[in-house]
Amino acid sequence: MSKPKILLQLDGDDHASAFDAVVAVDSQVDYLLQYHGVQSEQVQDLIHGAMFTRGPKDLHRTAVFIGGSSVAHGEQLLTAATKCFFGPLRVSVMLDANGANTTAAAAVLAAARHVDLSQSQVLVLAATGPVGQRAVRLLARAGAAVRVASRSAQRAAEVCAKIESAVAGAKLTAVATGDREQVATALDGVQAVISAGAAGIELLPADVRAAATALRVAVDLNAVPPLGIGGVEFADQAVDRDGTLCYGAIGVGGTKMKIHKAAIAELFESNDRILDAEEIFEIGKSLATSA
Amino acid sequence: MSKPKILLQLDGDDHASAFDAVVAVDSQVDYLLQYHGVQSEQVQDLIHGAMFTRGPKDLHRTAVFIGGSSVAHGEQLLTAATKCFFGPLRVSVMLDANGANTTAAAAVLAAARHVDLSQSQVLVLAATGPVGQRAVRLLARAGAAVRVASRSAQRAAEVCAKIESAVAGAKLTAVATGDREQVATALDGVQAVISAGAAGIELLPADVRAAATALRVAVDLNAVPPLGIGGVEFADQAVDRDGTLCYGAIGVGGTKMKIHKAAIAELFESNDRILDAEEIFEIGKSLATSA
Amino acid sequence: MSKPKILLQLDGDDHASAFDAVVAVDSQVDYLLQYHGVQSEQVQDLIHGAMFTRGPKDLHRTAVFIGGSSVAHGEQLLTAATKCFFGPLRVSVMLDANGANTTAAAAVLAAARHVDLSQSQVLVLAATGPVGQRAVRLLARAGAAVRVASRSAQRAAEVCAKIESAVAGAKLTAVATGDREQVATALDGVQAVISAGAAGIELLPADVRAAATALRVAVDLNAVPPLGIGGVEFADQAVDRDGTLCYGAIGVGGTKMKIHKAAIAELFESNDRILDAEEIFEIGKSLATSA
Repeated sequence: MSKPKILLQLDGDDHASAFDAVVAVDSQVDYLLQYHGVQSEQVQDLIHGAMFTRGPKDLHRTAVFIGGSSVAHGEQLLTAATKCFFGPLRVSVMLDANGANTTAAAAVLAAARHVDLSQSQVLVLAATGPVGQRAVRLLARAGAAVRVASRSAQRAAEVCAKIESAVAGAKLTAVATGDREQVATALDGVQAVISAGAAGIELLPADVRAAATALRVAVDLNAVPPLGIGGVEFADQAVDRDGTLCYGAIGVGGTKMKIHKAAIAELFESNDRILDAEEIFEIGKSLATSA
Repeated sequence: MSKPKILLQLDGDDHASAFDAVVAVDSQVDYLLQYHGVQSEQVQDLIHGAMFTRGPKDLHRTAVFIGGSSVAHGEQLLTAATKCFFGPLRVSVMLDANGANTTAAAAVLAAARHVDLSQSQVLVLAATGPVGQRAVRLLARAGAAVRVASRSAQRAAEVCAKIESAVAGAKLTAVATGDREQVATALDGVQAVISAGAAGIELLPADVRAAATALRVAVDLNAVPPLGIGGVEFADQAVDRDGTLCYGAIGVGGTKMKIHKAAIAELFESNDRILDAEEIFEIGKSLATSA
Repeated sequence: MSKPKILLQLDGDDHASAFDAVVAVDSQVDYLLQYHGVQSEQVQDLIHGAMFTRGPKDLHRTAVFIGGSSVAHGEQLLTAATKCFFGPLRVSVMLDANGANTTAAAAVLAAARHVDLSQSQVLVLAATGPVGQRAVRLLARAGAAVRVASRSAQRAAEVCAKIESAVAGAKLTAVATGDREQVATALDGVQAVISAGAAGIELLPADVRAAATALRVAVDLNAVPPLGIGGVEFADQAVDRDGTLCYGAIGVGGTKMKIHKAAIAELFESNDRILDAEEIFEIGKSLATSA
């Protein structure tokens, strides 16, 4: 008989995310061990505790989920976790702090439903944030030519440099989108746009979007109005607006949730998975194919 | 197949109550997520995490229990929780900080077993505390004429004013019970008395109680000796003492526990319950009727 | 139908041990309630919460595990816990802070496999630490003549005095092992040695060990190299080295884990167990006999 599935939830916030906890339960985890306020230097005791208790053949029944509101902190916890392993003595780990990985994967999949990414120009607004950077990474690996937009041209260029060093052959262009005209220029000739900005800030006005004749798909990830892309609504799911198929945060939420659950399930398939943006996107692609 | 039943336990103390946790388990909750040190401004993230993870038809399988030793803090958390809902997008919530709601319900039900509340004078000792105020509210709604007692006449009057504004037609009288004679006067002509005072303080001496000829039932909620009502014992459950049927804290404890479990079960019947004193009392009444 | 088995994990550290949690799950506990940062003065609320919620016939389905990295703190929590009981109104409790009890039990059982303790001289290195002291106690009760070693003769003598007052007829000798020659003298004529020192400090050089002609068994409990006994390896399990059967930390780890799980299971057999070093050793002995 198989051992119960145990998920350690490591979270840097004052309370471990209730959202992540409910998703874990709904992904058929048997026991959830919630840890909050987790710092990098505390990860080893927790991971070793999870590793040294079960025999090698049962290690795939224990896994680690790293969440919390700060993606940067989550990345530090992931780095700390992967340093705790000894060869085959390891457990699977998933990073989805602030939902960044599952959100970026769902956004790119939404775009991929309507354009051939490898033949497309894609604009990512607020591309220097954690979700934006992940979307750029995923798009670049899929062969898209990506315009990496930020209000600051400098920060956009920094992100381009960072991702180019990680993704061989990435086709990235840093663009500044500090005002309406810059946004219009950035959008010119683009087939898809993903807006990954902070809550309540409009990055792309509705009339600029409507005037973009090449634009086939627009994905907005902001869940608090005003949305990042003018005229798009939360629940939009391939809604045609001025010739562009639009998605809102809730419109991609169903896909995001399916990816999250499938990724949790995958953690228990073997004891050697490290699920970050790329791996989670692959899980999303396989779901899209099988659906 | 139904989703597992998840209960979020929100508690303002350093540790989330073990008592509340065991009762949750024994109320057939499948997963208990314990959160301690919860402040009002942290409630939204927790409630939204619980709300935005399951579809509308499964929302009644997630619920929130608010506990902790401070009733005032629990009330703040309840207020914060109810502000997180969007129309039908909500989850059920129960407040039972310090057991105040289930205790007050059990005490009033014990009295109601032996007198017709709508025809009775009832004295509540230490009526300005959280359990006392809840007992007064429940008695007032049941139509009783309630004498609201406190050592301070001023505080008694304040509580009367507060409850009169909330309960239409409440028949309340503020009484001061600073000394033995005031207590005897307050008890004169009363059919039932509920003592809701702090641990270890006698509020009603045994001989004063024995001399109260109209008194049919006396309920003491103090679990640490000396008890609030002289001569009553912890385990008393309708024990006749000088012609008065007496209840101690353990004597009403069985009813309190049944109400607590029934209320937890009720949370999962639909996603729109808000269980505070009155609703929990109604659950207790239906148990008494069906028993 | 039996109530679910609930284990309260009380831990003084910033996070409740993941190791102890996984072992609890694998010991068929149904619900694990993890409490971290637990101080002595907070124990009563937690224990009473666990005690006052279920009827007497179900109290054996609730139990308490005390862990954490500090054995001294764990002992304080155990003392606080045992003060919370009222006659038959109690729950079972196990102490295994830092794994000290299960480790000491496994170490002494390893030695007992190869020598008759009641007829043997046994040396305990680093005997003044928490695991060392427990090993001395267990050996003394088994009738062994124990050499209680520390770099400081004074601290060794203090531990002897403490254990002699607790174990009637204990045959203890304080020995200083500050240098190589003292260690050789301490080892002379000894049949078994247990090394319970801090990680990464060699207490007994390989050549001194090899020269000890009476030595039949050597047990090293240090899991981080260099090990406490030169030449012994982590995974050694009765490996013959120079005529001595050697055990490393992982070599006794399997027994330690079996004892831990059997002890957790025992907690739920009745509501009156207090499992400290001696009781946990007895559980280990019964496993060895039945195996």
